[in-house]
Amino acid sequence: MGKSKRRVVWTMSGGPTRVKNRTFVAAINEAYQHQDEIPEFWGAVNGPVGVLRGKFMDLYQISPGLLRRVAHTPGSALGSTRKKFKKGDITPEEFAKALMTHEITDYVVQGGNGSAAAAIKIKQIAQEAGYELRVYHVPKTIDNDLVGSDHTPGYGSAARYVILRTMGDDTDTHSLPGVKINVVQGRDAGWLAASSRLAREFGSDSPHLIYVPEVSFYTDKFLEDIAEIAGRYGRAVVTVAEGIRYHDGNMVASEIGGNGNGNGNGEKGKAKLAHYLEDLAQDNMGSDIRVRSDTFGYSSRTMPGVVSEQDGIEADMVGGRVIELVLAKADGQSVTLQRGSDLFGYIPVIGSISLEEIAGRTRQLDKRSIAQSGNDINATFVEYIRPLVGEIPPLGKLNLTDTI
Amino acid sequence: MGKSKRRVVWTMSGGPTRVKNRTFVAAINEAYQHQDEIPEFWGAVNGPVGVLRGKFMDLYQISPGLLRRVAHTPGSALGSTRKKFKKGDITPEEFAKALMTHEITDYVVQGGNGSAAAAIKIKQIAQEAGYELRVYHVPKTIDNDLVGSDHTPGYGSAARYVILRTMGDDTDTHSLPGVKINVVQGRDAGWLAASSRLAREFGSDSPHLIYVPEVSFYTDKFLEDIAEIAGRYGRAVVTVAEGIRYHDGNMVASEIGGNGNGNGNGEKGKAKLAHYLEDLAQDNMGSDIRVRSDTFGYSSRTMPGVVSEQDGIEADMVGGRVIELVLAKADGQSVTLQRGSDLFGYIPVIGSISLEEIAGRTRQLDKRSIAQSGNDINATFVEYIRPLVGEIPPLGKLNLTDTI
Repeated sequence: MGKSKRRVVWTMSGGPTRVKNRTFVAAINEAYQHQDEIPEFWGAVNGPVGVLRGKFMDLYQISPGLLRRVAHTPGSALGSTRKKFKKGDITPEEFAKALMTHEITDYVVQGGNGSAAAAIKIKQIAQEAGYELRVYHVPKTIDNDLVGSDHTPGYGSAARYVILRTMGDDTDTHSLPGVKINVVQGRDAGWLAASSRLAREFGSDSPHLIYVPEVSFYTDKFLEDIAEIAGRYGRAVVTVAEGIRYHDGNMVASEIGGNGNGNGNGEKGKAKLAHYLEDLAQDNMGSDIRVRSDTFGYSSRTMPGVVSEQDGIEADMVGGRVIELVLAKADGQSVTLQRGSDLFGYIPVIGSISLEEIAGRTRQLDKRSIAQSGNDINATFVEYIRPLVGEIPPLGKLNLTDTI
Repeated sequence: MGKSKRRVVWTMSGGPTRVKNRTFVAAINEAYQHQDEIPEFWGAVNGPVGVLRGKFMDLYQISPGLLRRVAHTPGSALGSTRKKFKKGDITPEEFAKALMTHEITDYVVQGGNGSAAAAIKIKQIAQEAGYELRVYHVPKTIDNDLVGSDHTPGYGSAARYVILRTMGDDTDTHSLPGVKINVVQGRDAGWLAASSRLAREFGSDSPHLIYVPEVSFYTDKFLEDIAEIAGRYGRAVVTVAEGIRYHDGNMVASEIGGNGNGNGNGEKGKAKLAHYLEDLAQDNMGSDIRVRSDTFGYSSRTMPGVVSEQDGIEADMVGGRVIELVLAKADGQSVTLQRGSDLFGYIPVIGSISLEEIAGRTRQLDKRSIAQSGNDINATFVEYIRPLVGEIPPLGKLNLTDTI
């Protein structure tokens, strides 16, 4: 290729998170310390679409003050895209030409497991065009489903949001008794739905029931469970992952026609699932008890002011680490996040893994995390998630049976 | 009645808010300083239902530590009810008997304008039974629609939530372009929908359009507005109050069959409205741009961690004031919240007003707050709301046209 000067391009992929921009800004900060080795650090606007169209920002030119604000703003600061590497979206041949035209030597993809697969595809596209390109991946996803990691940046803050909203519904149903069903993100794994478990301090606290895609969903059992809890506590707060599926493996949301959207962002599909379950439960309970449902929507990933401090710090760490990979020319690697021995409390450990090992694969909840009953999450999971979500303020509730 | 010792009963009415319990705890704290005059201070569990069933808590017996936690917990700590004073719900004759049986001398209702009407009803029920009862009202409502007040405790924190969620959608659509329609609480007045306006710092920030019940809704204009904004910015974030109505005065939500619920809490009705508008906009825009919708649900009033400090302080203040009304035997009064001259910045001023003046009446947005175009909120409203919602963190966004 006749070019020795390195030109590193950062691309954002997939959905936004609360700390995606922290990783991005930490990486700029780290690269800036190594300008002799990384003389050019560009950001592509809207991911590979920006590469194709030649839309790049010079990341060293952004003012430190703005970068600080960007770091603490949810979202994908460079813009992301839903387009794929295929004719009609991003034609591979044209993309390879763009890589060469802009003399890109190193390509960083910030995303989830789908983006890891895309990174491999990009490497392959370049190779087929006879162009030498080093590719790296740095994780971000609220789904927490990357293999090879204990957890992923973005998850802790999204989980914090799920926990706080569940606590809100706890106080709500404590105020005005009823059944509340919340449909939470997670098509293939129940990590976010499970996180709501941390909202429960005492047995009577919400959530009273949790349904995840890892356990087969039986409608009759679901209705019995709710009736039983409502009978015991006069109310029930229920967490349901969007990806719950019947014993035959078909998603409930798909069966009721609510999930035609292949991007995993079917907000309306989630709402259909929520209303379907709400109607079932209301019919089953009769009109004596009020049944309501809600979906947690995009706000799980982007509403400001709900960041887990630990999540933010770890997002910084993986941003620094991917630049170390770039400096080492560790082509085809992704950053991982593990936890050290818990002898001395929680310690995050940053490492790396080959892209092939994580691409397109999904990590589900550990069987030990799921209660035998199939409608709850075990305390082992509470120990797992507690260090990731930041301090959760305790609720103060009166015992309403403590009357004169 | 032959009874000289005062027995004050606190009841909670209507929906929960984030600071309802602060008012309640501040009142207990104030009453506790005046035990010679208020020897007994009881809380009825689930409002008038608790009175009927003789379910009272001795408020002086709750530990200070628990009270502190309760104060900072969203909800209605004593429980509320949706039941009304009518046969089948709460029979007036039985209720009057319960008042006498429990020798209640002073009755405090914490609620909104509907609760003020209920307080008058309670006074009347007692009078008809020949029983002397003093009645007081202390405001709480996220709706901000009480006449006689500049704003109400609970509104600032709910508005803070609406603002932060709108900012989240701003970063979301900045990351992945699309149209986002948010349906926000407010059947008869657009106070909460209008609050989203504070999320906009620059002209291109969200929300780009705001529709309130105070302005007639025209479907064609709505679709044109969105297309125009999406054409200009490549995205659009739209706030819609649940109570938007056509020129003939009929609510859009009712017309599409989404609002059969008379309690004003029709979450599913809001979702139906959201999906209806989403589908209209998607059909109009074509498949090139992604249209999504969401409702803000119960989390607007109860998700913890989103309290406006000013709102919390004012909630404390009105709690202290209603006890002063009780001490003064100011029968039939409600607490008001005004603002002082703004010569020296924002200052809240607590006062009182006759229940008759506020009961069942609704305060709408000032015409000066609404833009001439009918699809936006003016800067005068920003000045009004800014002191009420607490510090809003600025977003840091890159200008994505600032390319090399």
